[in-house]
Amino acid sequence: MQLAQRINRLSSSPIRDILHVLERPDMISFAGGLPAADSFPALEKLSVSSATLQYGASEGDSALRERIALHLRDLGLRVDSEQIFILSGSQQGIDLVAKLFVERNTSIAIESPTYLAALQVFEFFGANFIPFHADQLGELENKAHPPRLLYVNPTFQNPSGLCYHAKQRQDLANLCNRLGTVLFEDDPYRELFYEPCERRPIVSYLKNEQWIYQSSFSKTFAPGLRLGYLVCSKSLTKYFSRLKQACDLHTNRLSQAIILEHYFTSANHTRLNELRDLYRHKRDRFNDYLKTYLGDIASWSRPQGGLFFWIALNPDIRIDTRALLAKTLEKNVAFMPGEAFYPEAPPASNHIRLNFSLANESQVDKGLRQLRRRLDDFATAQSINHLTVNC
Amino acid sequence: MQLAQRINRLSSSPIRDILHVLERPDMISFAGGLPAADSFPALEKLSVSSATLQYGASEGDSALRERIALHLRDLGLRVDSEQIFILSGSQQGIDLVAKLFVERNTSIAIESPTYLAALQVFEFFGANFIPFHADQLGELENKAHPPRLLYVNPTFQNPSGLCYHAKQRQDLANLCNRLGTVLFEDDPYRELFYEPCERRPIVSYLKNEQWIYQSSFSKTFAPGLRLGYLVCSKSLTKYFSRLKQACDLHTNRLSQAIILEHYFTSANHTRLNELRDLYRHKRDRFNDYLKTYLGDIASWSRPQGGLFFWIALNPDIRIDTRALLAKTLEKNVAFMPGEAFYPEAPPASNHIRLNFSLANESQVDKGLRQLRRRLDDFATAQSINHLTVNC
Repeated sequence: MQLAQRINRLSSSPIRDILHVLERPDMISFAGGLPAADSFPALEKLSVSSATLQYGASEGDSALRERIALHLRDLGLRVDSEQIFILSGSQQGIDLVAKLFVERNTSIAIESPTYLAALQVFEFFGANFIPFHADQLGELENKAHPPRLLYVNPTFQNPSGLCYHAKQRQDLANLCNRLGTVLFEDDPYRELFYEPCERRPIVSYLKNEQWIYQSSFSKTFAPGLRLGYLVCSKSLTKYFSRLKQACDLHTNRLSQAIILEHYFTSANHTRLNELRDLYRHKRDRFNDYLKTYLGDIASWSRPQGGLFFWIALNPDIRIDTRALLAKTLEKNVAFMPGEAFYPEAPPASNHIRLNFSLANESQVDKGLRQLRRRLDDFATAQSINHLTVNC
Repeated sequence: MQLAQRINRLSSSPIRDILHVLERPDMISFAGGLPAADSFPALEKLSVSSATLQYGASEGDSALRERIALHLRDLGLRVDSEQIFILSGSQQGIDLVAKLFVERNTSIAIESPTYLAALQVFEFFGANFIPFHADQLGELENKAHPPRLLYVNPTFQNPSGLCYHAKQRQDLANLCNRLGTVLFEDDPYRELFYEPCERRPIVSYLKNEQWIYQSSFSKTFAPGLRLGYLVCSKSLTKYFSRLKQACDLHTNRLSQAIILEHYFTSANHTRLNELRDLYRHKRDRFNDYLKTYLGDIASWSRPQGGLFFWIALNPDIRIDTRALLAKTLEKNVAFMPGEAFYPEAPPASNHIRLNFSLANESQVDKGLRQLRRRLDDFATAQSINHLTVNC
């Protein structure tokens, strides 16, 4: 049996590798980006019309596309509904964009660190990564060939929690304009803000360039419904129509009907405010426990939004956090090792990503205490190794 | 802006091209494979649990995977639930299989004619097609390089309606065994049988080879829920886990919960019997109208199952049925031109595909009458052209 060569480039996600462990009932998971179980909308006595059960348009149901276009115009995007594509979750958008732009050795500018499943898809299709940082954009101008695509998650970035300020957004838009690089802005966390901060989509600063912007209802409504959307500059729409059709014909219509009926309502507006209050509180309590258990050996910024703390262990603790994970899993505590988020694959990143939305307070207390103990075990082992080497 | 080269190979589907026309309220469509609107199950007062709204496993929910494995064992497949992947509709299975096997110039054996959206996806990923017919399998043995993959839709084939008899199934399995070719069996219509006929999955005849089998709940329950599944030989499962995750993380969980609760029940068993009775009746009435309007200028077999008539216009009517479609659309009648279903892209196939499940009887009468009139217009134009040429 012969497989396509690209399959050798399809890495397994670290979350996937530990999924069977995460399902243990006594597991405390800081690993995924799961919403709190009690944060979901109440969906009772849904009636499903027969129209909803029939095949639908590949681009999505027109009423929902129109409603999303209206929402995006409120954010400053000059778009109409023809530019909107309803996705089976925004992971699908990454697959479609990769199919459209990425082949063997295509250069993609990508943040370092960045969303690991974007790395997974782009690498699968053959990308060469050009890592960048929001405050060092100039480095992208000195390349022999400008990147074909730039992927960015500027608002409460996964994993760093970073939120680009206005000048960084403008600079990035200007850069794409100058280089002729297509901007792909991934914005799943924008509604999960806990303090005022700049959230204007970068694509709205663009002038003549091609762009793609996407978001999701997974973080603000319900991931199980697998619903997101993609919007793009007009000349790209014909490609996404075909790509979406070839991919899965169209998105689930029941989810589309539920979102159309329940998302853009005043009741849901209230629910979203409550969700932000809930997550702000969870973030702050998590931050307190972090100070208690890791304050002397790590540093971090409290994120203004999103779902994650990005923790830098002090430089004297040089460990591969994947090995640390193996140890904490034995004690039923899961987190995401930092290594998985880097396009340039560092041997050891010294970072870990901790989700604060899912675990309850007693789990946070217990889980972070365990994490600290395992870190101490590593430090002890390290100093013994160090002594051994020196003797 | 530079795009991936493969995008030049992504053809638009003929159905997509006319979709905006199909949405006209007075359109009579024989074009798609849509279930009858009154055939859908009643889904009222659904209660959605918060577990269903959370993220789920990429492979699908374990209870549904187990239930489908049980069903497949009843069909003669020796499989367990670890081999089952819940798909966002079976079109997605074609995308995943193409990603796993198909790159530039990969040889794929494929029926001629075959499902047009399978052609679309395989071609997009770079396939070279080796067309075959069920009764001329020997031709596949004489190739310098055996095909890497063989795609077949043996039970009420789309578009031909063909159902492979037992010897053809056994022969095809033997062939894949001898050639070391991976068999990909697509079986969305198997439950829509109107007479007894052989339906045993070909993959169940295989011995040591690698294989993929998929089916769908779109034709027997509700396409709007976008739910299908794929099952494969054990050594392929690790690839599909990663491919499915990279593609859309996982399938809609509400649809999975609905299918688990409502599909494998005695009430749905009764509903499926009623659906077969309904479609058998529609097929037979459609057949009567076909005899009335096309009996003197076309031939066809009444299909034993599935959703389509595959009509061969008499050889003296040499027309490009795509041009005929343009004419019937002006009169609000749609069908599928035969050309789209051929891997070898004939200039004119003289075939048309007519769906009998969607239109009601008065639409069938009116639609087929219009189709005949437009065919007569073409014949008249042809004889005038013929005269002109001869003069």
